[in-house]
This record gives sequence, C-alpha cells and structure tokens, in this order.
Amino acid sequence: MSVVLYDYWRSSASCRVRIALALKGIAYQRVPVDLLSGAQRDAEHLARNPQGLVPVLETDGLRLTQSLAILEYLEETRPEPPLLPQDAKARAHVRALALAVACEIHPISNLGVLARVGDLAGPGARAAWNRDNIARGLETIERLLDHPGFTGRFCYGDQPGMADCVLIPQLYNASRWGVEFQHLSRVDAVLAACSALEAFQVATPEKARQQEVCTSAI
Amino acid sequence: MSVVLYDYWRSSASCRVRIALALKGIAYQRVPVDLLSGAQRDAEHLARNPQGLVPVLETDGLRLTQSLAILEYLEETRPEPPLLPQDAKARAHVRALALAVACEIHPISNLGVLARVGDLAGPGARAAWNRDNIARGLETIERLLDHPGFTGRFCYGDQPGMADCVLIPQLYNASRWGVEFQHLSRVDAVLAACSALEAFQVATPEKARQQEVCTSAI
Repeated sequence: MSVVLYDYWRSSASCRVRIALALKGIAYQRVPVDLLSGAQRDAEHLARNPQGLVPVLETDGLRLTQSLAILEYLEETRPEPPLLPQDAKARAHVRALALAVACEIHPISNLGVLARVGDLAGPGARAAWNRDNIARGLETIERLLDHPGFTGRFCYGDQPGMADCVLIPQLYNASRWGVEFQHLSRVDAVLAACSALEAFQVATPEKARQQEVCTSAI
Repeated sequence: MSVVLYDYWRSSASCRVRIALALKGIAYQRVPVDLLSGAQRDAEHLARNPQGLVPVLETDGLRLTQSLAILEYLEETRPEPPLLPQDAKARAHVRALALAVACEIHPISNLGVLARVGDLAGPGARAAWNRDNIARGLETIERLLDHPGFTGRFCYGDQPGMADCVLIPQLYNASRWGVEFQHLSRVDAVLAACSALEAFQVATPEKARQQEVCTSAI
C-alpha cells in the first residue's frame, strides 16, 4: 500500500517525518502543501486534516496527523530500525527531549504565532521574538543532553532516534533565523553526527525544496 | 518505592499527570513548586529539571520530565488500566488529540509566553491573546473529536485515556480565561463524562490548591 506525505519543505514538523521515513527506509510520495499561499486552509487539505496543518501521512488506510503521533505509529508498525530504545527509562528520556523541542520551542515559532506577534508589535518584532525563543530553548536542550546516564553520539546512544528527528529540523530553523548554537557542544555534536547520515541529508528543507522545483519543471 | 510529583496547582501539564496517576491508582506525594514566586528557577528545582518546568515525577529512581513522556512511561510500566487503546490506528488518533492540545494550544498560553506578550504590547494584550488562542484551538479539537471512526463518551471510546488527561486541564484553563465552549458539543460531552469520575475530581487545580492550603495550615 502506498505511503503519501502531505508536507511543506520548510515545515519543521514535516521534516521530522521525512527523516523518520528515511531512517526506516519507507518509500513514499511527497505532495507539497504551500503554507505561504494558504493551501493548508483549502477544503481539500482540511478534509485531510481539520487542524489545517502539515504533515499528514496517508498510510494503511489512515490519515495520520501530529508529527510525534506519526513517529510513534511508524515505530509501532515498522519497528526496525527503532526510533526509541528498548528500556522504558531511556524511552522516557528520548521522548522528553523530543517534547522539549516540540512543546517548548517549536509552537512559539510557528507561522501563526509569528503573524500574531507582528500584528501586536509590528513585523520587526517577529525576528527578535523568534531568535530569543529558539536560543533559550536550545540552551535547555544542551542541559538535557548533558544527562550523565544518557550519553552517546546522537541525542541518545550511538544510533539516531526520535529525539534526533525532532531536534535536527529545529537546528535548521535556528540557522535560518541566525541563532548561533556552536557554543552548545552537545547540540553541535548531535548535528554533526546526524548530518553525516544519508537519512538526514535527503530530508532537509533544501532537498525537499529542490524536489518541488524539479517536479514542477518537468 | 515512593512516587513524588513536583507540581503547581494551576499548571495544566501538572494536572495531566495528577489525572493519570489517579486513573492508574498510583499513590504519590505532592511537592508544590510555586511558579508565581519563581521557585521553578531555584537551584533545587533546576537540579530536578534543567528545563525549570513542572511537572517532575520521581519514581523508579528516575526524575521524569515532560508530561506526555511521563504519561507514556506510566503506560509502559503500569499498563492497567490503559491510557492508550491496543490498536495502533486508535493509538495514533489518541496521541494526535493529546498533541493537538499539548503542541498547538498549551505552549502559546504558558506563563513565559504571556509575559513576553505583555512586554511587547502591554499587560492588557495578554487576555485577548490567550482567549483567541484557546478558542481557536478548541474549535479544532471539536473537529478532531468528530472523527467518524473514533466515537465514544470520552475522547476515544468509553474509557478515559491519554487524550482526556490532556484535554480536561485545557478546559479548566479555558474556563478560567472566560473562553466559552458549550457550543462544542463533543468537547462539552467529554468534559461531562470526565467530571463524573473521581480520578478527575481529585486532580483538579482547585483540589490541589486546597491540599496546599490545608497542609500549610497544619
């Protein structure tokens, strides 16, 4: 059965799912939903996801929403290679890391919130809001990664997993907004470890953007 | 081994964990961390959680953070009664509902974000920001609950689960800020079903506040 990902090249939440699909070696078709032109609010997309958000993953006769729920579903239905460790204690640590990005950093930087910040305080306020939020959030991630019981080359251990799927897109976003994080040695080391892997290389916003340009040129 | 919950009576994320502990019948000791006086940034609390957030659950020799990671850990280590259905498709739906609150509504209404909104546009801007965010978010939840394949008295089926643990505290918060949701018939029905259960009654912000007042009066 075919797997279809409705996404947007620059969406961090979409990028998480592209990485997870690549790590698990799941072939899929991408269908871009252009957030800048408001395509997420078209009736066609709202029928896929009443939240008007990307990503949506169509698979197994389902339309799955919310990137972390999608990652958990993929883990339960296609367990190899695993995105979560076997041990419940380590699983809790990995999930907490993923949620520390997905609940504490990402929502406060999304397009809708930035638009509202612009409405309140002028468009110039958006960049400062966003940089401040991302910088504070990544400082916290560095402290969480520095957990004595949970070390390794990646967020946890020596294989990439759920937390890496979530952190790396946030780091692309940080760079885009000019937030420096090279002083965060654990964060920076995780980026280096992930960037060396093909699964992360094929899932970047730039690669997704290139695919769209090439497809529309055919 | 004893279970200790570091929380704050009014924190939605803390309330999620209190409900889950009650649903699973896990006895625990509450240790309040007063967010209004900044106790979450004391060295003592930062040693528990470098994020400076509540809740933190101490159990099994661990300090667990991020409420949804805590709920998943409890589900894996104390599976009865379950917070998630058995079927992977239904699990994805329940997790997506929980995340639609935890990632799309709650972070944009937290104390830190509201303080920044106040800094940008004056303290009067905070209530409108918050009400607008919660009202929009709950409209979306209503549409998600209206999923034809997943009905029942609770968010999913006829037993309370992870999504109810997350939605109900958000509804307390909505009421506190004067957001009406009685026109959202599915949301309102879930609130009625949950409010009839002792596990939800003992976990409310009001009940937690009363406990603190009574304890300090002894």
